Amino acid sequence: MIPTLAWTPEGVRFIDQTRLPLEESYVLATTYEQVADVIVTMVVRGAPAIGVSAAYGVALGALRSTAASTHEFAPEFERVCACLAGTRPTAVNLFWAIDRMKRCFAALRAADSSMATVKEELLAEAHAMYEEDIAACKTMGAFGGALLPDEGGVLTHCNAGALATCGYGTALGVIRSAIEQGKKINVYADETRPFLQGARLTAWELMADHIPTTVICDNMAASLMRAGKIQAVVVGADRIAANGDAANKIGTYNVAILAKEHGIPFYVAAPWSTIDMATPTGDLIPIEERPAVEVTHHGGRQLTPNGVGIRNPAFDVTPAKYITAIITERGVLRPPYGESLKRMNETAK
Amino acid sequence: MIPTLAWTPEGVRFIDQTRLPLEESYVLATTYEQVADVIVTMVVRGAPAIGVSAAYGVALGALRSTAASTHEFAPEFERVCACLAGTRPTAVNLFWAIDRMKRCFAALRAADSSMATVKEELLAEAHAMYEEDIAACKTMGAFGGALLPDEGGVLTHCNAGALATCGYGTALGVIRSAIEQGKKINVYADETRPFLQGARLTAWELMADHIPTTVICDNMAASLMRAGKIQAVVVGADRIAANGDAANKIGTYNVAILAKEHGIPFYVAAPWSTIDMATPTGDLIPIEERPAVEVTHHGGRQLTPNGVGIRNPAFDVTPAKYITAIITERGVLRPPYGESLKRMNETAK
Repeated sequence: MIPTLAWTPEGVRFIDQTRLPLEESYVLATTYEQVADVIVTMVVRGAPAIGVSAAYGVALGALRSTAASTHEFAPEFERVCACLAGTRPTAVNLFWAIDRMKRCFAALRAADSSMATVKEELLAEAHAMYEEDIAACKTMGAFGGALLPDEGGVLTHCNAGALATCGYGTALGVIRSAIEQGKKINVYADETRPFLQGARLTAWELMADHIPTTVICDNMAASLMRAGKIQAVVVGADRIAANGDAANKIGTYNVAILAKEHGIPFYVAAPWSTIDMATPTGDLIPIEERPAVEVTHHGGRQLTPNGVGIRNPAFDVTPAKYITAIITERGVLRPPYGESLKRMNETAK
Repeated sequence: MIPTLAWTPEGVRFIDQTRLPLEESYVLATTYEQVADVIVTMVVRGAPAIGVSAAYGVALGALRSTAASTHEFAPEFERVCACLAGTRPTAVNLFWAIDRMKRCFAALRAADSSMATVKEELLAEAHAMYEEDIAACKTMGAFGGALLPDEGGVLTHCNAGALATCGYGTALGVIRSAIEQGKKINVYADETRPFLQGARLTAWELMADHIPTTVICDNMAASLMRAGKIQAVVVGADRIAANGDAANKIGTYNVAILAKEHGIPFYVAAPWSTIDMATPTGDLIPIEERPAVEVTHHGGRQLTPNGVGIRNPAFDVTPAKYITAIITERGVLRPPYGESLKRMNETAK
């Protein structure tokens, strides 16, 4: 099992995803500020992993508090939540996780719980989210694995794998499950500039599982599709709007258009916590612009001339019309997503 | 003027394109073997520049020869041509240039010319090709510049600029000409993995000309198109088949599909020497696969885990149906290209 993040008596231990694949090192976050820092610097990344990390961050905020009572702790709790919510804007799982911790705290406060109980229960809630995340990945893997062909190439973009979740993965969980179902899948991994999550992380974790993997530059996908090498595309998501538009790592929208043009199915795999029924369309999803240095430099080495303009949006939005199916732990959704998402949302209430 | 390649009394002086943009250094090739090496290692690249480089290589082969007669030189001439033809397979300009030098030599031999004359005339032929290349760029620039909007963003892929030619450029010549025509163009340059010709070379030469330039990762193009930032795409070509299918730097086909999907015109600019009437369709164009290390490493730093599969095709083929117009020094061609290319080819004979 790939140790994306794990609770320890001292705090949360993260594998440092900025140093993979050549170095397997770990970062221990013992305070909520350190968890926030780990999210901002992308030591941990991936929408589901960010959500659970933030939940543990909130729990650490309570555990490290010297407040004498739950009442005294309340404003501190708000500061902890605000700090963690301010780390990254696009992935909705972050806000979903913090909201869930807020609801947990509100219930504890309403029940006049002691600080000892608050500490215990907030940590238990984070643990529950961790376990639920792995279970959701396994379930959506089973649903999604059934959609993949018995044999062929599957393209994925960025890393929606064990490293983006608490384990198993969303898009890579679908691939893992297909292989467990006896299918012969070889994976093409977009390297995913500028942060190279595909070249570094997807390649690393699939090789650890002995899954045949070929890394390509992002711009090679169309020619491989035309050559008949790719039978399906599976990606993750950072936020899915109520109409099915899906925000995911920059370049996902490119891949979706290429898949459509070549008649290849394009699947999005994400836990239900990624679905944001409060955001009507993808146009309303905030897109994080990351520092230019991620594009201009690699490993401290400058690639571009001084002073040139740079764009570095970390995400793009794939309109629903390009998505063949959305795979969640509650089931597989088909277009029109406005209706199918609404129906599944109401069923689950 | 950007000094891509220049004849000197000692041989051909090349700006080292592997070291740009941070270092402006030069390589002097004094023998044909050195010219071949400069092409293989991509110190010089770009279809038109490769063609003229090979012509100078052939001239150097003659100039350095100790053969006493043209007859004695003939087998040596064949070896020189074969060595230069073996450097890179995709760009047809290379073979076009060598063929032209062969025709020149055949005429000299038929006229029973002395070795002194052969040396002089082969160098003169290379010089003529150098001058013609710059003139062709200027002419296609004028034709193509008229097609660009009066104002807006123009996306280009790889480097089809002064650095890919003897000066001015093909796709970037079109942009330069549009700006000289008073148009307000800002350029988006795909960084163009893995060799980063866009981030390094296009950015460098456009900044030298004070043309507003923004570098993006290859996977950001679709989201910029959707946001309305791009009004036209202009790229170069390494070989255009008789039906209009165009081989160009890997990723060009991706961009062509994205442009079509967003209703943005997609132009290919190339000199007539890039058109290969002997190759009926793009499927028959040989595509060079370059070393995996270009994808797995940057600046000596490893990006991918050991042992992962890698693909590194240097080019892809954009089917004619995605190309709005082909811009050459003989005029602008429109679909159906099978007909318009044939007509222009016959007119020019």
